[in-house]
Order: sequence, then C-alpha cells, then structure tokens
Amino acid sequence: MCLPDQPGPAVASLPELLQPALEEVDRILSSTASEVDEPLAGMLRSALDGGKRVRATVVILVGQLLTSPPQQSHRLAAAVEVLHAATLVHDDLIDQARVRRGRPALHAARSPAVSVLAGDYMLARAAAMFASLEDARILEVFGKALCVLCDGEIRQLLRERDGSASRSQYYRDAEAKTAALFAAAAEMAGLLAGANEGQLAVLRIFGQQLGLAFQIVDDVLDLTGSEAELGKPVGSDLRQGLVTLPVLCYLEDTPEEGVVRAVLDGQHDETHVLAAIQAIRSSRAIDAALMEARACASRSQEALSAFPDGAARRALNWLAESCTERKH
Amino acid sequence: MCLPDQPGPAVASLPELLQPALEEVDRILSSTASEVDEPLAGMLRSALDGGKRVRATVVILVGQLLTSPPQQSHRLAAAVEVLHAATLVHDDLIDQARVRRGRPALHAARSPAVSVLAGDYMLARAAAMFASLEDARILEVFGKALCVLCDGEIRQLLRERDGSASRSQYYRDAEAKTAALFAAAAEMAGLLAGANEGQLAVLRIFGQQLGLAFQIVDDVLDLTGSEAELGKPVGSDLRQGLVTLPVLCYLEDTPEEGVVRAVLDGQHDETHVLAAIQAIRSSRAIDAALMEARACASRSQEALSAFPDGAARRALNWLAESCTERKH
Repeated sequence: MCLPDQPGPAVASLPELLQPALEEVDRILSSTASEVDEPLAGMLRSALDGGKRVRATVVILVGQLLTSPPQQSHRLAAAVEVLHAATLVHDDLIDQARVRRGRPALHAARSPAVSVLAGDYMLARAAAMFASLEDARILEVFGKALCVLCDGEIRQLLRERDGSASRSQYYRDAEAKTAALFAAAAEMAGLLAGANEGQLAVLRIFGQQLGLAFQIVDDVLDLTGSEAELGKPVGSDLRQGLVTLPVLCYLEDTPEEGVVRAVLDGQHDETHVLAAIQAIRSSRAIDAALMEARACASRSQEALSAFPDGAARRALNWLAESCTERKH
Repeated sequence: MCLPDQPGPAVASLPELLQPALEEVDRILSSTASEVDEPLAGMLRSALDGGKRVRATVVILVGQLLTSPPQQSHRLAAAVEVLHAATLVHDDLIDQARVRRGRPALHAARSPAVSVLAGDYMLARAAAMFASLEDARILEVFGKALCVLCDGEIRQLLRERDGSASRSQYYRDAEAKTAALFAAAAEMAGLLAGANEGQLAVLRIFGQQLGLAFQIVDDVLDLTGSEAELGKPVGSDLRQGLVTLPVLCYLEDTPEEGVVRAVLDGQHDETHVLAAIQAIRSSRAIDAALMEARACASRSQEALSAFPDGAARRALNWLAESCTERKH
C-alpha cells in the first residue's frame, strides 16, 4: 500500500511558532525510545527518527488554534507520530519494502517476526500515550481510526490487481489508509482543547481533506521524485501493481496505451518500469493529479474558515498549501 | 513462543454464576465480528470463536467479587478476549504455527500480510472497546501490558536458542507473555469496580500468579496432550527449540542425557521429537513442573484471602485450581 513517508522537513519554511513545539515532540519521542532497554530501544529510535512530522504539526497547530495547554498538545502529537511509525513498520513488512527513510526497513534489518512485534509494541505504546491524556474520547478516536486504516488496507491487499481500479476506489483507499489518521489527529487535538461538536466536525473535514491532498502528492512523488529524495526506489507503487491517481489520470487520457499496462500486468524489469514512469511523467497526468490534490487542500482550508483568523489558522492554511508543494 | 490457547471449555464444571456471563461475552464478541463487512468479518469470527475464555472469566469473577455493573464487566471481558485473540493471530504468524484451535491459522488460511493487518485491526478494536468504558486508567493498563508482552516476546525471539535457558529466564518470559495480560485483566476489572490501590495490588498478584500457573500447565500439556486435545502438533515448543519448565526440570534431573538435547539442538525429525517427548513424559519432570504450577495457583488463592469470603471468591479459587487440573 505504501503509506506516505520520506526523510527531511515537511515544508520549505516552518512558521516560527511551530519549530519549538516540534523540537519538544522530538524530545518526547526520543525519551520514549530511551525508556526501554536494547534491543527494542534501538528499533524504536530507528523507527521514530526522521519523518516529516506532518501529523504532529496538525495536532500542534490545531492545539494553538484552540489554545490547548502546549504540554498536553506535544504529548498528543508524539503519540500520533508513534502510531504513524507503528503503521509504517507493519506496512514495510507487508509491502516487502526494503528501505524506509533511506535506511533498511526494520523487517529487513532484523526479521519479519521482530518487525511484527516491534510494530505491536509501538501500537501499544501509542495507546498508553493516548491514555495518559485521560480523555476516553481521544482513545476511542484513536482505536476507530486504526480500525478504518487496517480494514481499508486488508481490502486493498485482497483486491485483485487487474488494473481495473477506479477513481472512487482510489479515494476510498486513500481515505482509509491516510486521511482517517489525519482526520483523527485533528479531531483528537480538538478533543484535547475541549472543542464543541461543530468544531470537531470541521476539524475532521480539515484533517480528512488535508490527508487526501497529502496522499495524492505522495503518489505523484512516487513517480516524479528521485530515489535520493524518496528514500526508496522510484515507482514503488507501480511495481506493486497499485493504480494510484496519477496512473489513473494517465490511463483515462490514453486508453490504448501499453507501456504502463505492461508494468501493471506484471512486467517488473527496470526497462519496462522506467519506460512507464517516463510515459506518465511526460503526460499531463501529473498536473491533473496535482490539481486534485490542490482541490483537496483548498477544501481543507475552506473548512478552517469556520475558525477566527489568527496566526494558528494562517499556519494551518500554510500547512495545507505546503503539502501540495512539497518535493519529497 | 506459543501463547497458550486450545479449544474447549476452560474447566470441568463452571460455577453456575459464570455461565450466563460467558454467554453474554460470546454474544458481544460475535456482534463485534458482525459490525464489519467481509472479508474481515469472517477473519474475526474465526479468530474470536472458541477458546477457553479464561481471561474473560477472570474479569467477570473479579467484577462479581467487587460488584461491578455486569454489563460493563461483560464488555471489559470481551475487550480482553479480543486483545488476547489479536496476540494469538500475530503469534501464529511469528511461530509459523499452521493450526490454531484445530483450524488453519489465519496467516496460513489467508496470507502473512493479511494476518498482520487483521491482528492490528483486533488490537485497535480492543483499544476502542477499552476506551468505550471511559476510564483512562483501564486504557493505560491495557497499553502497558501489551508493551510488556511485546518487549518480552522480542527478547525471547532474539535470544540464542542454545539450550542454556534458566529457570529465572523461563519465569521472566512467562511473566511477560502470559502473566502480564492475566494481571492486567484482573487489575482492569478492579479499576472498573472502583477498587482502591491496595485491592488493585492484590488483584495484580492474583492475576500474575494465575497466569504463571496457566502458562506452566500449558507448557506441560504441550508435552503430555494429544494432537486432538491440543488442536496443534504435540511438542510444538520443543520443535521450536523452546526450553519450557518441564524440559528444564528434565534436564536438571538428567544432565547427561542426549535425546532431548538433540531436539533442542535442531534434530526435528519425528523419531527424535517423539523419543524426546517420551523421555520427558516418563520422567518426574512433568510432576515437578505441575507442582510449581500448583504453587503459583496457591499463591494466587492466598492473595484473594484479602477479600471477604463469598460465592465470587470461591469461584476465583476454583478457577485457580481448575487451571492446574485442566487437560487441554
């Protein structure tokens, strides 16, 4: 399935109000790893290190928007990142991805069995971190988002990869595997701040649309990025027979084509894969997909207009924009 | 590692006050599976069906001891069983166990990838069920117990299997992989009932010692049971090079022996395995291990003496006894 994640900072320029908070989140994550002994501590460090912290950024900025106590907000943000990292550990195992953030994936560095357990440990640790915030609704949102994510991934995994994917199917998958956790992060941040039901609904829409934008851009970068930028081979989704939005756009525009279809049908040698990537890159499919990402980002910004203007809302708007402009 | 679990009822004769509660737990588990669509629903049914419900029994009886609202107690018991079943799904994958409760294990029936996700789904579902009880401490106990379990299993997995296991190592492993969840089940039931700190400490000891007794008997049955009773091949632990308590007792008594050592050193053909099982069965190791199980069960009963006598305490005493007397 390839959940999005690559090395490096989220965006070109972080708003000033964000930097100290993200440093605090990193400190919590680092102490989370230090609280256990080796060999687990090393696995946690490696799984939690790096990453763009986009989900943590959502939590922190929503916290600033609704004036949550910063310390609680940092802890929630760290818990969300632990949860996200746990799903990546299991995803890499499932996808047989060898590389994560430019380093060997845990299942490759250790073993599949160890990566199952380390991922479970991280899920449990995330649950304990959420629980320590002492709001049962936060826990319930966490549990439900993870259920949606797993259910969606099981469906995607068991679906026949016959190249017959549709746009509605793509969006359903993206909602489950990415947008659900973004929406949960925004909603949990709202719960922490004591937001009312109307505000929570707005925050869910914001997170969901931001997550969709993020996933679409991730799927575009999988085709347009370099291996160095991505921290993994270019065209990973294509090699797995996954029909992502840019591929869908391409196939819709050129129904008679054969190069991309050949890869989706199982021709995984480098010549075929690179030819397919080149064909999609030179088409208008990339722009078409990015336009859909920008539409999602706009919808996330529109949702925010329910909140009064200010530094935090502007930062969230900036986040939505920067998600569609990112290069890795 | 082989977490304990086999088909059939927990014990010879259930106290009358328990039967309707366990039926209610089964009803909740069955509706938990029905709430999702296929293919996940079928996987959940298969993972949640059967089982001895010993952990659920602990929750229900502690609830009766401390007069919890029964409905809450049943929900907690069901959540504990979902958590337990989730760990079994991942354990079977890790151990490459082909059979669970007499049926193909999920990773064998579907695929390793699907079993990772289905186990994750069940962990998430358990978290949501715990969260719905609206007591953050319950969630924290759940998260921490699962952390201990995963950490312990990672250690056991990465340890060299050179037959040099010690009794203290065996007990540390058994505490992490089994007793921690029993202790958590008892503690969570106490939290649900509003137990004070002293009562919670007693309940943790009760659960922990009961869990140790349960694990030891499980390790004995792995050698003395039949494949039909166990729902999996006899000697599964031995075949994996796991030095369980009865094996330790045997090796301590007969330091010069070669039959069991050969299997632990990797001779996994049926002739060697059956000879090793026979050697242990005919020794006094089985009785020695069962004596330790009974000592743990006694300690769990002693802990309970902190509570006033009554039907629920007697049922918990009965549970401890029946755990050491069970034949599957």
